[in-house]
Amino acid sequence: MPIANTIREALSSSSMIRKMFEEGNQLKKQYGNDKVFDFSIGNPDIEPPPAFHEVLCRLATEDKKGSHGYMPNAGYADVRTALAEKAGREHGVSLDATHLIMAVGAAGGLNVVLKAILNPGDEALVSRPYFMEYKAYTSNHGGCLVEVDALPDFSLDIPALVAALSPKTAAVLINSPHNPTGRVYPAADIARLADALRKHGAACGRYPYLVADEPYREIAYNIEVPPVLCAYDESIVVNSYSKSLSLPGERIGYIVVSPTASDKDALINALIYATRVLGFVNAPALMQRIVAELTHARVDVAVYERRRDAFKQALDAAGIAYSEPEGAFYLFCKVPDSAPFYGNDRAFVDALKQQLILGVPGSSFGKPGWVRFAYCVDEKLIHASAPAFKKVMTSGL
Amino acid sequence: MPIANTIREALSSSSMIRKMFEEGNQLKKQYGNDKVFDFSIGNPDIEPPPAFHEVLCRLATEDKKGSHGYMPNAGYADVRTALAEKAGREHGVSLDATHLIMAVGAAGGLNVVLKAILNPGDEALVSRPYFMEYKAYTSNHGGCLVEVDALPDFSLDIPALVAALSPKTAAVLINSPHNPTGRVYPAADIARLADALRKHGAACGRYPYLVADEPYREIAYNIEVPPVLCAYDESIVVNSYSKSLSLPGERIGYIVVSPTASDKDALINALIYATRVLGFVNAPALMQRIVAELTHARVDVAVYERRRDAFKQALDAAGIAYSEPEGAFYLFCKVPDSAPFYGNDRAFVDALKQQLILGVPGSSFGKPGWVRFAYCVDEKLIHASAPAFKKVMTSGL
Repeated sequence: MPIANTIREALSSSSMIRKMFEEGNQLKKQYGNDKVFDFSIGNPDIEPPPAFHEVLCRLATEDKKGSHGYMPNAGYADVRTALAEKAGREHGVSLDATHLIMAVGAAGGLNVVLKAILNPGDEALVSRPYFMEYKAYTSNHGGCLVEVDALPDFSLDIPALVAALSPKTAAVLINSPHNPTGRVYPAADIARLADALRKHGAACGRYPYLVADEPYREIAYNIEVPPVLCAYDESIVVNSYSKSLSLPGERIGYIVVSPTASDKDALINALIYATRVLGFVNAPALMQRIVAELTHARVDVAVYERRRDAFKQALDAAGIAYSEPEGAFYLFCKVPDSAPFYGNDRAFVDALKQQLILGVPGSSFGKPGWVRFAYCVDEKLIHASAPAFKKVMTSGL
Repeated sequence: MPIANTIREALSSSSMIRKMFEEGNQLKKQYGNDKVFDFSIGNPDIEPPPAFHEVLCRLATEDKKGSHGYMPNAGYADVRTALAEKAGREHGVSLDATHLIMAVGAAGGLNVVLKAILNPGDEALVSRPYFMEYKAYTSNHGGCLVEVDALPDFSLDIPALVAALSPKTAAVLINSPHNPTGRVYPAADIARLADALRKHGAACGRYPYLVADEPYREIAYNIEVPPVLCAYDESIVVNSYSKSLSLPGERIGYIVVSPTASDKDALINALIYATRVLGFVNAPALMQRIVAELTHARVDVAVYERRRDAFKQALDAAGIAYSEPEGAFYLFCKVPDSAPFYGNDRAFVDALKQQLILGVPGSSFGKPGWVRFAYCVDEKLIHASAPAFKKVMTSGL
């Protein structure tokens, strides 16, 4: 009747983000929804675009025979064709259905990728701070996540990444636009990283996969999110509709493999096999058919941009420093080094909570001394939080 | 750029069932849908009940704010309450929402359970023949599947199972109604197994979990599928709507934990954590809300019963022996021991394929010398296959 030891350990230090989610719900019950400044979780409050509702209603009404049955584990061929065309345009390569596998969200897709490529003891490199679930995803499949500090502006420290490469490196995992910092990695950095991986591969005989986790690709502010698949042969992109169509609860996304990957067929078969045996079996059928019709739809990014600007204003007014987000809907702010916080993110988060502001300590992303705010909430709430931020900064003095 | 070694090995001997699925599609293209007797895959052809379409259309039209967003990883509380009530009635225990976790189908649920309970080197016992994916599910999480032959009538060989128990046994995995044999384990067998597990637990200090995989619970022919949760404290049930509502493509199911399990809270938290980090995150939102309204709906089991009888008739006429299915929609038939098959299931499957009959060799379930037919196909096709079965039995002589 015991549970697994690794799980027991993990539970004792489990996701601060989810903990905040539950705490936030408690506080809202106590004080009212509009009194709690809950910036803790990346649960988009923007509704899916109207086109989603139209397609959902139409497919629900038509509901053709067999439309909720099994399909090939990789997904419907026509859905994969539609999505591959779009992914090809985004990544500067020519893709067809065979390069794309439907996934149960990006989290499901990443687990499938890691299951497919990791041998016991293999390493995946990641730039720190990072979305902490990556650590569990990697260890799920016998691998080890190796953390390499980002540069002070949270862009990739490529020499440091290169120094961490070894024959055990199965993958370098990047995430742009980035959670928790909102950084978008420039094309030049992707190119330099790809160069380094090619050199490393040529030298040691093992080319690491470049795995790009891109759920925020569509959420970027007046900046192009550079392509990855055209930059490096051994690259894999994972994406989802959780953010671009605000469908995180529906668990729908996909994996795309570079058309020039070596041993490509084996890789794709491995991804399909992993999809099956990890118990995903396939991405949800109805949602597959819906997103295939929505390749040109996305949520209104201008709404997120206005919120980002409102958040910057609130933090500026309170005198809190932060890293300017170029995409995603997170703002990573620096905990004041002065009294009473002395750079302690947990202390700062506690003080914020006193003012009913919920954020997630940077420690939960491998970066103590910082706090993440998710601004996928009503702009009014952000404006309304400004006095509370000011109060936190003055009350402790 | 290499893929994982275990995956490379698995791919070379990958699922015969899925292979037949693809081959079946090829043959259908070549000969026409109604000319191929495809009994290879358990993809229910019965449409979801009308109530499903009604609820789907209504929820699609209403589409309330936030209804496609994240919810707690375990699923919506009201959905879990509704399903817990039903599962409690089926299993003779009193359950509430806290005992039930929504899952991405039963395959997803089983992976979550095994992730939550297996330590490296732990064993899960299973009665052979069995659904072969169990092997991959177990090894995914560092465990080892130990196979124990069933009795000749495919019921549990309880003394043999007991003999295979060890301090490493984390779980005994049962599946009733059973794939591939259609056997329903009687209550007396569940009770004897529970007794044995209690004795083993008391003696060695570790009570194995009894994990019941029950996607076919609702598909049984004039026989009650006995409860499990009331029979043994350390029991866990996994179920899905893939068969009972014909929704296999939508990936919706659940896990229920015995209310008297020791260390229950830790187990439930472990299951929720595993749901999150394996990348399921949560079961698809819309389908959760739909199945909660369909606790009294199910597909028409009488249709499957008529098909079973038609299949028995076809095999009887051809002189092929089989095990009488009590539930599920599979018929496990014995390969003739005489010339030209000599009990060789692959040879028999090849001869069947010549007559455009597709079945899956028993080897794919750990039971050579037998073949599985899935009769989730139009009854007419079953009747039409009778001459082809006869031909197979006479042509080789």
